[in-house]
Amino acid sequence: MADLETPRTRLLVSCPDRQGIIAEVSRFLNEHDANIVENNQYSTEPGESVFLQRTVFEWTGEGEAAEVLGPAFAAEVGEPLGMEWRFEDARRPKRTAIFVSRYDHCLLDLLWRARRGELPIDVGLVVSNHPDLGADVASFGIPFEHVPVTKETKAEAESRQLELLGDEYDLVVLARYMQILSGGFLARAGIPIINIHHSFLPAFAGAGPYRQARERGVKLIGATAHYVTEDLDEGPIIEQGVVRVSHRDDAIELERRGADVERTTLARAVAWHCEDRVVATGATTVVL
Amino acid sequence: MADLETPRTRLLVSCPDRQGIIAEVSRFLNEHDANIVENNQYSTEPGESVFLQRTVFEWTGEGEAAEVLGPAFAAEVGEPLGMEWRFEDARRPKRTAIFVSRYDHCLLDLLWRARRGELPIDVGLVVSNHPDLGADVASFGIPFEHVPVTKETKAEAESRQLELLGDEYDLVVLARYMQILSGGFLARAGIPIINIHHSFLPAFAGAGPYRQARERGVKLIGATAHYVTEDLDEGPIIEQGVVRVSHRDDAIELERRGADVERTTLARAVAWHCEDRVVATGATTVVL
Amino acid sequence: MADLETPRTRLLVSCPDRQGIIAEVSRFLNEHDANIVENNQYSTEPGESVFLQRTVFEWTGEGEAAEVLGPAFAAEVGEPLGMEWRFEDARRPKRTAIFVSRYDHCLLDLLWRARRGELPIDVGLVVSNHPDLGADVASFGIPFEHVPVTKETKAEAESRQLELLGDEYDLVVLARYMQILSGGFLARAGIPIINIHHSFLPAFAGAGPYRQARERGVKLIGATAHYVTEDLDEGPIIEQGVVRVSHRDDAIELERRGADVERTTLARAVAWHCEDRVVATGATTVVL
Amino acid sequence: MADLETPRTRLLVSCPDRQGIIAEVSRFLNEHDANIVENNQYSTEPGESVFLQRTVFEWTGEGEAAEVLGPAFAAEVGEPLGMEWRFEDARRPKRTAIFVSRYDHCLLDLLWRARRGELPIDVGLVVSNHPDLGADVASFGIPFEHVPVTKETKAEAESRQLELLGDEYDLVVLARYMQILSGGFLARAGIPIINIHHSFLPAFAGAGPYRQARERGVKLIGATAHYVTEDLDEGPIIEQGVVRVSHRDDAIELERRGADVERTTLARAVAWHCEDRVVATGATTVVL
Repeated sequence: MADLETPRTRLLVSCPDRQGIIAEVSRFLNEHDANIVENNQYSTEPGESVFLQRTVFEWTGEGEAAEVLGPAFAAEVGEPLGMEWRFEDARRPKRTAIFVSRYDHCLLDLLWRARRGELPIDVGLVVSNHPDLGADVASFGIPFEHVPVTKETKAEAESRQLELLGDEYDLVVLARYMQILSGGFLARAGIPIINIHHSFLPAFAGAGPYRQARERGVKLIGATAHYVTEDLDEGPIIEQGVVRVSHRDDAIELERRGADVERTTLARAVAWHCEDRVVATGATTVVL
Repeated sequence: MADLETPRTRLLVSCPDRQGIIAEVSRFLNEHDANIVENNQYSTEPGESVFLQRTVFEWTGEGEAAEVLGPAFAAEVGEPLGMEWRFEDARRPKRTAIFVSRYDHCLLDLLWRARRGELPIDVGLVVSNHPDLGADVASFGIPFEHVPVTKETKAEAESRQLELLGDEYDLVVLARYMQILSGGFLARAGIPIINIHHSFLPAFAGAGPYRQARERGVKLIGATAHYVTEDLDEGPIIEQGVVRVSHRDDAIELERRGADVERTTLARAVAWHCEDRVVATGATTVVL
Repeated sequence: MADLETPRTRLLVSCPDRQGIIAEVSRFLNEHDANIVENNQYSTEPGESVFLQRTVFEWTGEGEAAEVLGPAFAAEVGEPLGMEWRFEDARRPKRTAIFVSRYDHCLLDLLWRARRGELPIDVGLVVSNHPDLGADVASFGIPFEHVPVTKETKAEAESRQLELLGDEYDLVVLARYMQILSGGFLARAGIPIINIHHSFLPAFAGAGPYRQARERGVKLIGATAHYVTEDLDEGPIIEQGVVRVSHRDDAIELERRGADVERTTLARAVAWHCEDRVVATGATTVVL
Repeated sequence: MADLETPRTRLLVSCPDRQGIIAEVSRFLNEHDANIVENNQYSTEPGESVFLQRTVFEWTGEGEAAEVLGPAFAAEVGEPLGMEWRFEDARRPKRTAIFVSRYDHCLLDLLWRARRGELPIDVGLVVSNHPDLGADVASFGIPFEHVPVTKETKAEAESRQLELLGDEYDLVVLARYMQILSGGFLARAGIPIINIHHSFLPAFAGAGPYRQARERGVKLIGATAHYVTEDLDEGPIIEQGVVRVSHRDDAIELERRGADVERTTLARAVAWHCEDRVVATGATTVVL
């Protein structure tokens, strides 16, 4: 879970794998009086292996750890070892915008968990292409923006959405947002976007997947939370869940059960992302 | 579980849905002094709905319930209501042949469970296109037949397999049998064939599915047990299972975990089939 | 799921087990032009076995099925066979009062699901011994009554609660209500009361169960939904759920995960109860 | 999974928590040309926190890593920092003895997984207080010793068991061994002993737990794998599993389902133990 109250900082590191990285990073932190409280590493397949590390440390010096330790880290460790890195203040929740259409289950689950302090997110905006959920969002004291989208107005709508986002957000969550975001939008938004969609074993292409699943006698239905890329529903997978169904469940009931697994799966994915645990590397993710 | 020791009979009924079927069947059984101990019905979607019923009853009359009650049932109930039906002696295990290639996990799991009395099957034959598992099968006291299959000898091999089956079997289980059975084989065998194969959310077509799953960052891998039809891996689904994986699991470990979920999923599917619970109807199944 | 829109009726039957019950009930319904759409039976252990049946039927006659068919059923079937029985209109949601203390997760989950039409309940009242959740409940347009309870005022508080319930409710759900209801309250309320509480493998008696679970290295935590009896937390179990935890989860995180499994487990239990699927028989339940 | 083929070594460290431990250990390994491939740490609760670390490294120097690096590690890191530590050759499977009574499911699952290379164990001995499973064990080519145990001969039997173990084993697994081992046996054996037993939510004390579970309407049954201590069934928990059951499952079926979850849970626990992932600390375990 997020470390919202203790003065903790996360250091995220990615670089070509080689011997001695852990030693260098931990030596640096130790010498700067930072106490490591959690540390995870992972190296991708041999060959051109990439080394990934997430280190949580406590630092009680003056000022922000990132500002004070950053330049020294760059000079002593980051640049010599050819790293990409960043420091994240673990107390700062991710500034999050939620996009939604008409289904409320994922949206309400996120808002409620955020209010309970279960998710380290600060939801500053909900955008919808339908007005239906405005009152629900208002009851949480969060701004709701209705941005209708039609085939003709899509470009305009995306401009409006980008304007609303400005540069104030760290994350967009698509909580059953039924519009496809263009490659241009993704590029200009420039922040991670997490989506949730239903999944089956096996998969069913095309319209009416719950109906198709029922016709095939599927016994498990699932949900996949993933980062959005230009390949629709094909981005790196963050988390998945399943729930058991039977022939007694009609298509409506399948969708309800799907809704349950969607909201819990999305909540886990958002939590891990906001704790800086998820590294997208190539087409896959590593959850540190 | 199977009712192997008490004198129980199962009546399986399928017919166009209409009012009064349950009343007719239960009246018949009651009048013939049969005591219903389990009763499940299901009607498929409205429209041209199909009514399915599985009734387990105790009957202590002279002779076999099927032979004694059968003609009266046909005359009084089955034919007037346009039914398909059959009586099955619940004490009689299904005579089963297992086809396997080199992977032992599904085969051994079935043989153990059968030996422990967990599965109402009587395994009379194991056929393999490789000799590797002969000693294992021998230790269970079961005949093992090595029938090699190459592209050139496939027709001949299938003839040999059909000859081995004769008309002595109720069921074939493909316990990771890596050859595709021809439509001709399926037609001539004329008995249900259950297969197990790996499944993912989403599905991965083509070769190396575990590698593909790993590349996409899949978090759940699964298995699907289904009846074999001419559409490879597309037959009606009997049962599915999943297991959780992570980026730490390499392709070998993914396959091991897949093996675990394959064997438990196949065992459940075989158990339900042999308890006469599974009705394939169209492309789906109903598990009564 | 509940059948809120089609004119369906549920017939619930309980009686000493004997041959011919299914035949009698189905003959009766057939003769009165009722079409059975779902039918489940169960007989408890041999010996003094109890027969339980839940039959859902469509009936398009004039008036309420219960009123029109009831007297005939009593005379022809119910009384001759020594049954307890009742007819329930499947379109009528259960009138439900929710008792809660300070934790909001189970309460909000029930209110959301009810609003979405997922649960066949009509929540007419929320009672709490704390004022905290009043605004949340108000946003659903549901009356909220604050009835403080202290050791001294418990009897008085229970009288007030009984007065609020009147005879307008079919069900009370304790959605993390942290007070023990007296035997007198249970007797006078005279309606089913469903409770949810955390569970572990193995169980931990006494205070601080999450802390105890953590100290023992528990890897799974669970929740149990049950009917309330005078034996605290010992009533017949309706449903259970579990979630995986690890040593990395501190006591706070364990409680959060517990909250998640509590709310989904309670929601399933309430749904089954309100679909008249759950029969408490002795210390156990049968979910038909 | 176990790293049986690459020349890898595991370093297991436990010491009072303080700043700089990771830096020291990783500096040492780096300076001795060891490449860290996996690294996990955990600190128990604040206060008298204990720091635990499991580091897997590749070392291609001459000789055994433990022998070559050990003395230097002791002098430079282990003793100055007040550590307990050990080096383990990751290629060396744990020498394992299995104790069993009459139930075969856990035993066969372990032997089969070991044969497949799924479990890094080398099973050198099976001891049973019954002769029943001798032939099964023989078919794996493993010595089987029948050591009967009665109330009168228990001390003598334990002496015989200790004699059979000698000092040739790293681990004893109780695969449904239905005898209680004395405190004296545990002390003299001096190696970890893993046990599996059934678990329920809630727990049922006394005889016939499956019958009790059924009487209470339990919906989930489970299994707990734990280290054996003198407190029977109360040792630190390594792993747990559950499986869903219903009122339709009689006591025999509950036990069968229990057997399934017992064998998979035990196999996971043994795998983790043999990969040196499990640290028992106080009454709990940490799985690194």
